[in-house]
Amino acid sequence: MFHVVDTAIFDRPLLDELCQLTTAVRTIAKTEPGARFLTDLLPTKRAMLYFTQPSTRTFLSMNNACHVLGVRTSEIRDPEVSSEVKGETFEDSIRTFSSYVDLIVMRTPEAGYAARAAALMDSIPRPVPIINAGSGKDQHPTQALLDVYTLERSFESAGGIDGKTIGMMGDLKRGRTVRSLSRLMRHYRDVRLVFIAPDAFEMEPDIKAVLSEHGIPFVETARLHEVLPQLDAIYVTRMQSEHDVDDESSGVNLAPFTIGIHELKLLKTDAIIMHPLPRGPEIHPDVDADPRAMYWRQERNGMWMRAALISKLFAVEDRLMAALEDFA
Amino acid sequence: MFHVVDTAIFDRPLLDELCQLTTAVRTIAKTEPGARFLTDLLPTKRAMLYFTQPSTRTFLSMNNACHVLGVRTSEIRDPEVSSEVKGETFEDSIRTFSSYVDLIVMRTPEAGYAARAAALMDSIPRPVPIINAGSGKDQHPTQALLDVYTLERSFESAGGIDGKTIGMMGDLKRGRTVRSLSRLMRHYRDVRLVFIAPDAFEMEPDIKAVLSEHGIPFVETARLHEVLPQLDAIYVTRMQSEHDVDDESSGVNLAPFTIGIHELKLLKTDAIIMHPLPRGPEIHPDVDADPRAMYWRQERNGMWMRAALISKLFAVEDRLMAALEDFA
Amino acid sequence: MFHVVDTAIFDRPLLDELCQLTTAVRTIAKTEPGARFLTDLLPTKRAMLYFTQPSTRTFLSMNNACHVLGVRTSEIRDPEVSSEVKGETFEDSIRTFSSYVDLIVMRTPEAGYAARAAALMDSIPRPVPIINAGSGKDQHPTQALLDVYTLERSFESAGGIDGKTIGMMGDLKRGRTVRSLSRLMRHYRDVRLVFIAPDAFEMEPDIKAVLSEHGIPFVETARLHEVLPQLDAIYVTRMQSEHDVDDESSGVNLAPFTIGIHELKLLKTDAIIMHPLPRGPEIHPDVDADPRAMYWRQERNGMWMRAALISKLFAVEDRLMAALEDFA
Repeated sequence: MFHVVDTAIFDRPLLDELCQLTTAVRTIAKTEPGARFLTDLLPTKRAMLYFTQPSTRTFLSMNNACHVLGVRTSEIRDPEVSSEVKGETFEDSIRTFSSYVDLIVMRTPEAGYAARAAALMDSIPRPVPIINAGSGKDQHPTQALLDVYTLERSFESAGGIDGKTIGMMGDLKRGRTVRSLSRLMRHYRDVRLVFIAPDAFEMEPDIKAVLSEHGIPFVETARLHEVLPQLDAIYVTRMQSEHDVDDESSGVNLAPFTIGIHELKLLKTDAIIMHPLPRGPEIHPDVDADPRAMYWRQERNGMWMRAALISKLFAVEDRLMAALEDFA
Repeated sequence: MFHVVDTAIFDRPLLDELCQLTTAVRTIAKTEPGARFLTDLLPTKRAMLYFTQPSTRTFLSMNNACHVLGVRTSEIRDPEVSSEVKGETFEDSIRTFSSYVDLIVMRTPEAGYAARAAALMDSIPRPVPIINAGSGKDQHPTQALLDVYTLERSFESAGGIDGKTIGMMGDLKRGRTVRSLSRLMRHYRDVRLVFIAPDAFEMEPDIKAVLSEHGIPFVETARLHEVLPQLDAIYVTRMQSEHDVDDESSGVNLAPFTIGIHELKLLKTDAIIMHPLPRGPEIHPDVDADPRAMYWRQERNGMWMRAALISKLFAVEDRLMAALEDFA
Repeated sequence: MFHVVDTAIFDRPLLDELCQLTTAVRTIAKTEPGARFLTDLLPTKRAMLYFTQPSTRTFLSMNNACHVLGVRTSEIRDPEVSSEVKGETFEDSIRTFSSYVDLIVMRTPEAGYAARAAALMDSIPRPVPIINAGSGKDQHPTQALLDVYTLERSFESAGGIDGKTIGMMGDLKRGRTVRSLSRLMRHYRDVRLVFIAPDAFEMEPDIKAVLSEHGIPFVETARLHEVLPQLDAIYVTRMQSEHDVDDESSGVNLAPFTIGIHELKLLKTDAIIMHPLPRGPEIHPDVDADPRAMYWRQERNGMWMRAALISKLFAVEDRLMAALEDFA
């Protein structure tokens, strides 16, 4: 593992290792000596956060993941405050960043740029790893990792993801997170997926083809209340109306695709509710206090998972695992 | 003390302790080993600076106060570079920040937001402290603290604030700093206030009622030269014309409410001149070289006071006081 | 050396010392223990990067130079997110920055501001050094330093800059870098300069007068191919069309002032190609793979040179040189 651009690089052993590392970081950080150990892991590393698509959450999660490990960060969050105004090519900008830092984390509004940056790095004498923090409607591999980790952690004493029934609800057509997570399910045994969406926003054929190819059973429905009692997890997503071409989301009645107090009664007592956040009206704030609401912990898991990933990119994962017994 | 949202939380013992801590931080920072001790106090803590109202001074003061103690910082200074564009509620944004950091410092153009953030924190399982760095025309408690500290420090060998006559001049109607400072005077003995302002910008009745209630004598005047010789301190403020509703400040003659070389002659030799900065024409730059000009030191005190406050929030104030003898 | 505002402060001993320090920083940073030593050199120092003219490259280079040495950084990169909107003077803003930090690095679109900031510092009780990171068409001393260093390093085993023939090509009229570099050549022996530019953008008389005064031979030509075989280094610059007053660059045929694969054949095997970056069409990307293409290393040298400069400003250069044998 050098670049993290595409979820295709993850297989089951790597996913398991990253989950283990994430738990290690999270556990070690709980004590003050442990947290100090972490900030002393990578103090000589410098990262560049290049976010030409605004994203507070992913930016902060990445920035603080760096800080957890002592990595120093530089940032560009406003594409206009950049020498691209002087007509520099994307490749020259990325190579420039790589001159100064040891890691580039990037997010772009268009697809394919992280892959271009990684290809450039593979062609120069002093490459640095690229982490894709979201490239258009395309890929967002660290989000997929934190989602996998949240599922694994929540089902820790129930065999992990294997054998679970996972619902996904909302804008499945354009939701990058549910698409990536669905793809990763091929690495787990006996998972069953339940897609809950209005007709106009159902899961796309490409993902369904992948599932069929790998023998992962899935059902599609628009009736949440009918399927809710079967689910071990429900992954709720918001309507991605910013991607509307023709205002297509405005005519859809989203009320039946919402989790509120009533829906909590239909959900198993040991099931979990996930959401990549930010949320819209699809999860009522009253749900937050329910112990099954996992989305705030999921968000924080993102920081720990990203720290774990960075520790592996810089090959200090063994020191991390070895420290676990000292600080646990 | 958990959140610092409102000056109402400060009583005399707390004010005295914070002043003592501020002197400790400032003194320890003077030597290189002392400064290293400070940067090693809180290296595992992470702070979020969420400034949706631009403020270079308060931002830099807070950011560097964090850096003095080794706290790592993340920032949002442009409200548009934020996931609020995706329609997230204020509460969800704040809870997100709290997922990644140990402290939120915030400044907003409207009143009440820091209090809302603190209330949210008090309702969730993993709260972090909120420091209000200015919320509208409302509250700016760390500014009030640094003003108190500057007075106490300047009168260190003259019994501190107790017994002093303090003038406040300028836009007293809308000046947040003079309003807060006036309120805090109830914690000191035998203080006398002199309000010097044009009629249209005199101190509001709510503050005068507080002063009367606590038996703090005050006089109001428009004649600076008459009262200047009585003052131990004069706190000058600028016209807050950005808050004009009907261009009301443009018609007022501000010349009589100005400190220049001539006014220095009328001021006691041991009096001090304060200003929260930025300044307009109300203090002439020639005054800067006078030893009684305290506003630049006041500004720097802000950084030390904020570092002291953060050290207390994270309960390392005892280590700080204990270190004072090692490094003094 | 306190401020670094103007290249006029550099004489040969200082240039040599800074080159030696740069090599020391670069060499020590190569090992992990060395890199840790560097981050522990100045952890108690705080720098302000005040860039009211956007410049990704110089900003990142300076920010990471600080991080290499453990210096903590605060930044203003958007002049609108600043209290200057409240009408503060430039001098008051700079003095405010100096209240919180130990070093100000600044870049402005207009000339003369860094000098004004330095003059202000020289008049106050607690001055901090100013590093000019580019002030208008005026001065950019750290760029001149990194250019000198890149030449010295490239000719390390060939006697350094002394005795070399250095070409400069492109917009010599307005190119700040070639103007500064030309001025510094008076500190080296037997250097010969070759200016290659279209008529409308040839080197200005002021620089040519300096060269004549110091007996530095130079020729001017528009025929690249004719002079290319004589050069030890060619410093290519882009057309500064953002400084066009009357669209004067649009009518000029720039094709003859370009380095491509064909030109590589005319260049000596041990010559080097430099460019301050960002580049336009004047160097074809295919040239990047040629071992004589030095511009990417030149860019990275900028970070090391700036770290070396900062180490000298804070008087830790002896510790740096002493450490060289421990980590080399």
